[in-house]
Amino acid sequence: MNFAILFGGNSYEHEISIVSAVVLKKILKANLKFIFCDEERKFYLIPNDKMNSKTFSTKAYKKQKELTLRQKGFYSKNFFNENKIEIDCVINLIHGRDGEDGKVASLMEFFDIPFIGPRLEASVLSFNKEFTKLYAKNIGVKTLDYYMLRKNSNDNFMPNFPSILKPSRLGSSIGISIVKNEKEFEYAKDVAFEFDTDIVVEDFKSNIKEYNLAGCMIENEFIFSIIEEPKKKEFLDFEQKYLSFSGNNELMEADLSEELKTKLKDNFKKIYDPLFKGALIRCDFFVLNNEVYLNEINPNPGSLANYLFKDFNTVIEKLTKNAKNENKIKINYNFLHSINGQKGKL
Amino acid sequence: MNFAILFGGNSYEHEISIVSAVVLKKILKANLKFIFCDEERKFYLIPNDKMNSKTFSTKAYKKQKELTLRQKGFYSKNFFNENKIEIDCVINLIHGRDGEDGKVASLMEFFDIPFIGPRLEASVLSFNKEFTKLYAKNIGVKTLDYYMLRKNSNDNFMPNFPSILKPSRLGSSIGISIVKNEKEFEYAKDVAFEFDTDIVVEDFKSNIKEYNLAGCMIENEFIFSIIEEPKKKEFLDFEQKYLSFSGNNELMEADLSEELKTKLKDNFKKIYDPLFKGALIRCDFFVLNNEVYLNEINPNPGSLANYLFKDFNTVIEKLTKNAKNENKIKINYNFLHSINGQKGKL
Repeated sequence: MNFAILFGGNSYEHEISIVSAVVLKKILKANLKFIFCDEERKFYLIPNDKMNSKTFSTKAYKKQKELTLRQKGFYSKNFFNENKIEIDCVINLIHGRDGEDGKVASLMEFFDIPFIGPRLEASVLSFNKEFTKLYAKNIGVKTLDYYMLRKNSNDNFMPNFPSILKPSRLGSSIGISIVKNEKEFEYAKDVAFEFDTDIVVEDFKSNIKEYNLAGCMIENEFIFSIIEEPKKKEFLDFEQKYLSFSGNNELMEADLSEELKTKLKDNFKKIYDPLFKGALIRCDFFVLNNEVYLNEINPNPGSLANYLFKDFNTVIEKLTKNAKNENKIKINYNFLHSINGQKGKL
Repeated sequence: MNFAILFGGNSYEHEISIVSAVVLKKILKANLKFIFCDEERKFYLIPNDKMNSKTFSTKAYKKQKELTLRQKGFYSKNFFNENKIEIDCVINLIHGRDGEDGKVASLMEFFDIPFIGPRLEASVLSFNKEFTKLYAKNIGVKTLDYYMLRKNSNDNFMPNFPSILKPSRLGSSIGISIVKNEKEFEYAKDVAFEFDTDIVVEDFKSNIKEYNLAGCMIENEFIFSIIEEPKKKEFLDFEQKYLSFSGNNELMEADLSEELKTKLKDNFKKIYDPLFKGALIRCDFFVLNNEVYLNEINPNPGSLANYLFKDFNTVIEKLTKNAKNENKIKINYNFLHSINGQKGKL
């Protein structure tokens, strides 16, 4: 099986995605190719021995082969013809914008390239925290109460304190603030509106428990990771959050009752099936008074949350079974033939 | 201004899109180029004098120049280099799948090509009738009560009769049935599940009034079409619905009270702003007991509902102001530099 790891993207998590790809290179036992999407959204084929941070930070990647997307694959140019890169399946490892907002899903579907990652609808509903709330409610999964702030609307809303403000469309803690008073709230609004037109405001509950569960569904069976209790700080900032998946963190398997584990898994199942088929996702849950609330869905978690799985390589191999694209519609032109026949109008 | 009309697509409305493009060719007073997306999702540049149905139904389009998408545009190949097609703005005229489900929006955003048409989130929320219901509820717009049928779920749900069944993700009346008894319901379910995994079921109200309103928002001003009362049948089938925009229909401007007109426009505004910025959409409303309900959102209506506007050319020209793409994120590699400096790990 030839996998291509697609990473980079025009995203605030561009650099995180590079780290994520370097980590997966060490972990995945398969034929790997690395396709980098640079900030201009051009594609480059990065040789395996160049997969280190300098290749990108010095922009040395620009010396590598540029690739073009066409039907069925990525192509590199020679003098007179084009070579197709041999790929059986793309792993979408672009985090944040491009990778998780539906663009990569669209590209892979449109150009008919099998891929592991969230599909179009799943991307849009999980990338936007407001839509995630609507989706969760629709499938009977609880989320915390919230209020939406809109840019350029005269809104006198004042939250309880402390509250947490999150730009609706960014992962990675960027633009997120916890505010304890009115002054901090006003400042935090300005910060978050730098990144997004919509802000989710929730009461900040310091006594809340957090649990992360990753998994996927293959045929009709769920494969779950261990349940992780992430390191508790007020919240993890950009660097803390992502250095955690580079493999040198101490994994904290949560010590939970079977009842609560089952509850978390049942919520995961409701969220996953069928919207997230084809992807390995991580759901971040809150638990308060023994009730489970969805915090957020990571449809492309850092390095695919490999460290949470006992046999990650097998999971990825099995996932390729779900990597197929939508069925093509056959066009028969009966309608145009009938118009021509009847009216000669077109 | 050089417009490119992008049409075709791997969609049940592929042929409709061709008709739609031929109609716009007659109406739009601008420099037009025609980019055809065939059923294999390859792009071809169609010369203006070949814009007739035979070019497509006989597959003669394959003799035309094939185009490749790269950053900033569509390119055609010569022997030694590539020519960029001169385009200022693409008009997305692919109806149904590809054009209205978010794929074209993704392609245009990813490759940074200005376009008129629904953006990614707007596409996904309007393409799926269930999501449209969730969205409408969230912004305070009424829709009819409904029930969702899911493929492969053992569901004993029995609707009231008559009821209407609609596949969640198709436009153009395909797979839609009105059922009057249990037997018809079972058959209609099978038909709809041929097209989709999710079916919306609503009571069919024969006494309901239907009104269509198209429009867009440019800067902070709304431009509205006249309000049309579509020809009343049980429902319009594929051919009836689309022959209507080829220009030879008698337009029915609805005779409504100012109060109801205002209500319809107010609902349109709630739906449009800000999600549909950049697109010219048509909202199809129901009115029952003087209450307005959203039936569906057409984010790429046939021939852009040109026949509903008094000065369609001006509307399109103004819309190009909103055709801009999302801002690029600047990547500075500070994070990778800091990792290299501190740990030398990557």
